[in-house]
Amino acid sequence: MGNALDRREFLEKGTAGMLAAAAVATARSGACGEDSPLKPVRIGVVGVGGRGRWHVTNMLTYQENVVIPAICDYRTDRLAMAIETVKKAKGYEPDGYPNGKYDYRNMLERDDLDGILVATGIDFLGRISIDSLAAGKPVGHEVPGCYTLEECWELVEEHERSGKHCMLLENCCYGDETLMILNMIRQGLFGEPYFGVGSYVHDCRYSFFEADGTITWRGELWRDAYGCNYNSHALGSPSKWLGINDGDRFEYCLSMQSRPAGAHAYWTEKLGPQSEAAKVDFKTGDFVSTLIHTAQGRQIRVDYSLACTRPYSRYYLLQGMNGCFDSRTGMYLHGTSADYNWDPVDKFKEQYQHDYWRTDGAMAKKAGGHGGIDYFCIHDFIKMVRTGEPPWIDAYDAASWSSILHFSKLSLDRKGGPVEIDDFTRGKWKDPNWRQGRMA
Amino acid sequence: MGNALDRREFLEKGTAGMLAAAAVATARSGACGEDSPLKPVRIGVVGVGGRGRWHVTNMLTYQENVVIPAICDYRTDRLAMAIETVKKAKGYEPDGYPNGKYDYRNMLERDDLDGILVATGIDFLGRISIDSLAAGKPVGHEVPGCYTLEECWELVEEHERSGKHCMLLENCCYGDETLMILNMIRQGLFGEPYFGVGSYVHDCRYSFFEADGTITWRGELWRDAYGCNYNSHALGSPSKWLGINDGDRFEYCLSMQSRPAGAHAYWTEKLGPQSEAAKVDFKTGDFVSTLIHTAQGRQIRVDYSLACTRPYSRYYLLQGMNGCFDSRTGMYLHGTSADYNWDPVDKFKEQYQHDYWRTDGAMAKKAGGHGGIDYFCIHDFIKMVRTGEPPWIDAYDAASWSSILHFSKLSLDRKGGPVEIDDFTRGKWKDPNWRQGRMA
Repeated sequence: MGNALDRREFLEKGTAGMLAAAAVATARSGACGEDSPLKPVRIGVVGVGGRGRWHVTNMLTYQENVVIPAICDYRTDRLAMAIETVKKAKGYEPDGYPNGKYDYRNMLERDDLDGILVATGIDFLGRISIDSLAAGKPVGHEVPGCYTLEECWELVEEHERSGKHCMLLENCCYGDETLMILNMIRQGLFGEPYFGVGSYVHDCRYSFFEADGTITWRGELWRDAYGCNYNSHALGSPSKWLGINDGDRFEYCLSMQSRPAGAHAYWTEKLGPQSEAAKVDFKTGDFVSTLIHTAQGRQIRVDYSLACTRPYSRYYLLQGMNGCFDSRTGMYLHGTSADYNWDPVDKFKEQYQHDYWRTDGAMAKKAGGHGGIDYFCIHDFIKMVRTGEPPWIDAYDAASWSSILHFSKLSLDRKGGPVEIDDFTRGKWKDPNWRQGRMA
Repeated sequence: MGNALDRREFLEKGTAGMLAAAAVATARSGACGEDSPLKPVRIGVVGVGGRGRWHVTNMLTYQENVVIPAICDYRTDRLAMAIETVKKAKGYEPDGYPNGKYDYRNMLERDDLDGILVATGIDFLGRISIDSLAAGKPVGHEVPGCYTLEECWELVEEHERSGKHCMLLENCCYGDETLMILNMIRQGLFGEPYFGVGSYVHDCRYSFFEADGTITWRGELWRDAYGCNYNSHALGSPSKWLGINDGDRFEYCLSMQSRPAGAHAYWTEKLGPQSEAAKVDFKTGDFVSTLIHTAQGRQIRVDYSLACTRPYSRYYLLQGMNGCFDSRTGMYLHGTSADYNWDPVDKFKEQYQHDYWRTDGAMAKKAGGHGGIDYFCIHDFIKMVRTGEPPWIDAYDAASWSSILHFSKLSLDRKGGPVEIDDFTRGKWKDPNWRQGRMA
């Protein structure tokens, strides 16, 4: 796959404007910047397309005492933009690593980096993360994470060998509602949760090709890795709610997809039937449903598409013995809600909002980045690097969530037949306390 | 299974009050009753629990010139109530058939019945319908329809042999939104539809046992027929939208269920852990997901539960190449809706509401019965009997929808593996015009 480091250009922010706004926010909160009592954390960044550059801004502006001594991207235009961003914000110039797709390995040899943030295309997320751990450096990597099953296992093994931590930067797990539901589950309000739904239905067909006609990593993903191939925005929240790798684990999955037609139709209409784009044989179906059965007999469903003609849809559902949360409908708690009537979700916020949002919600919203979720996600990443403590979304989550790309594809090859999912914790999931205190 | 004819007591209406209201409605519309220019239609009814008695009221009060000469139910209290209902409404007394579960066969020998309506428990719906066709009488039967695969095939074969029609009385297909979406699909507004969702999540645990502790047919269903065992309220609408048996057909299905725990917990809490109810081994999982792949590469998902702690949830979704309808979120039509924004569904009603609702919606709502859908459903049943024309929801739909009970169970036995679904049309589905004009 080409364009390894080119990701999420379409999410690019007006960085200058954000920095200006951030300066105000920082002045107000007084919690960030070099005056912080916390020791500086030195982060090397690999991959500075739109998403990576936003992380640079986020870290320098909204997180406490972060320094970025080095940045790597083989696309020199982007590298230059990222270096300029740091220079403008902080006055110093990070070292650049522009020499091809493996120059990051030279960067990893530096002894002035406390951690690595990886925001490349999917084909390099796993590889660079594994290499970072091997170099003794904790790492945070963007979604969807590892591309192959081998990478998933290598990530876990390198984490265990090195003793260094790896965090999947799955921002959606930090949503206000997601964390509130987690809070409520832990307080027993839903009873035992046994069914969860997550979704990511986002018409990204426009992003499958560059303006010059080159296929992007998203386009390649949609072309080659049929199945649930960009799943963590959907899968993360219900996995956390149901205690995956924390008392339960994925056991097997089934997958079904509608025939692939949407991407072809879109690009045929846009560039004509004779265009190169119209000739690409996209193999991912227009709607991919994946059902995951857990060791405890629970069920998670993932709804996924990058090619549906509809508004961005990221809905979630949690069903427990005592009640239900449906992000599209509301909340129902037996004994609390009026008899068989949905309550508005906000009704529960005052009492059950997670401390992250209660304490720092205003700051997170000011920071922006998908409504504030990026703020908390990167906050936890920096905390992991600074303290050396294991993150909430760790190497085992990263591996098991990302592995669904592989296992759902296998299931499709078997006409939807069940495919056993590897236990990346090697049995540790059975102890519900092995991760105690990870997300208070 | 016991209590064959005991169904939907919990839906029972205050019949006397409804008849009074109906008299007013009839006087207003002037379309019903014996003064109708249409020839009388003579219906024999089997099974007069709450649901069956409501059909009696509906037919006598809101449909045109219906006569009910005979009623069968082995539960004599219910039979007496139904006979009394007819007597009060029309002044004549239908003959009763109270002698056991097979007395309906004596009723079928009468030569003064134009059609049969069956509203028994699931164990007899298929059997009685097949016997009715064999006796040369068109028949409408309640959901979920046939209980076994053999019955599904017998129903189709008896329909073909006798030349008489069979209609599944799937009222939800007659919903205002369902018919509007059908209308819009036929006018091409969604482009090619390729993914549909139907659901029936209805906490019916209270109805699994009678007050005296006897298990009901619903309880037996939940105990024995694990899988998607009461599916047509969910499956009917997306099947109609996607042209199942009309240019497409079910090809194979996958099924997954959460562990069964909800029914046991409910009855343990209600009657104590030593009660007979608490000792029943319910085998249907608390949430059952079924994915159906069609011959045209489309996909239907059925969400099903009778044991979830949440408000009644019957949501639908239709995804086409050009847009999406989600009953929980709204409507999106490319080129019509604002860029990637949901529109309220009602916005489209003025232009696209189906003629049934546009013309008779007020009457249907007055009649009541699940908000009016029963009115249209029974209207079509009476029309089928009166005209001899094939119904919209015919023997092939009845067989293929009901068969999912069997095939989803088989899939669960295979850990969710794919199970081929029989083609009850024996290839007729390939001709998209073989049913032309069935629902204008």
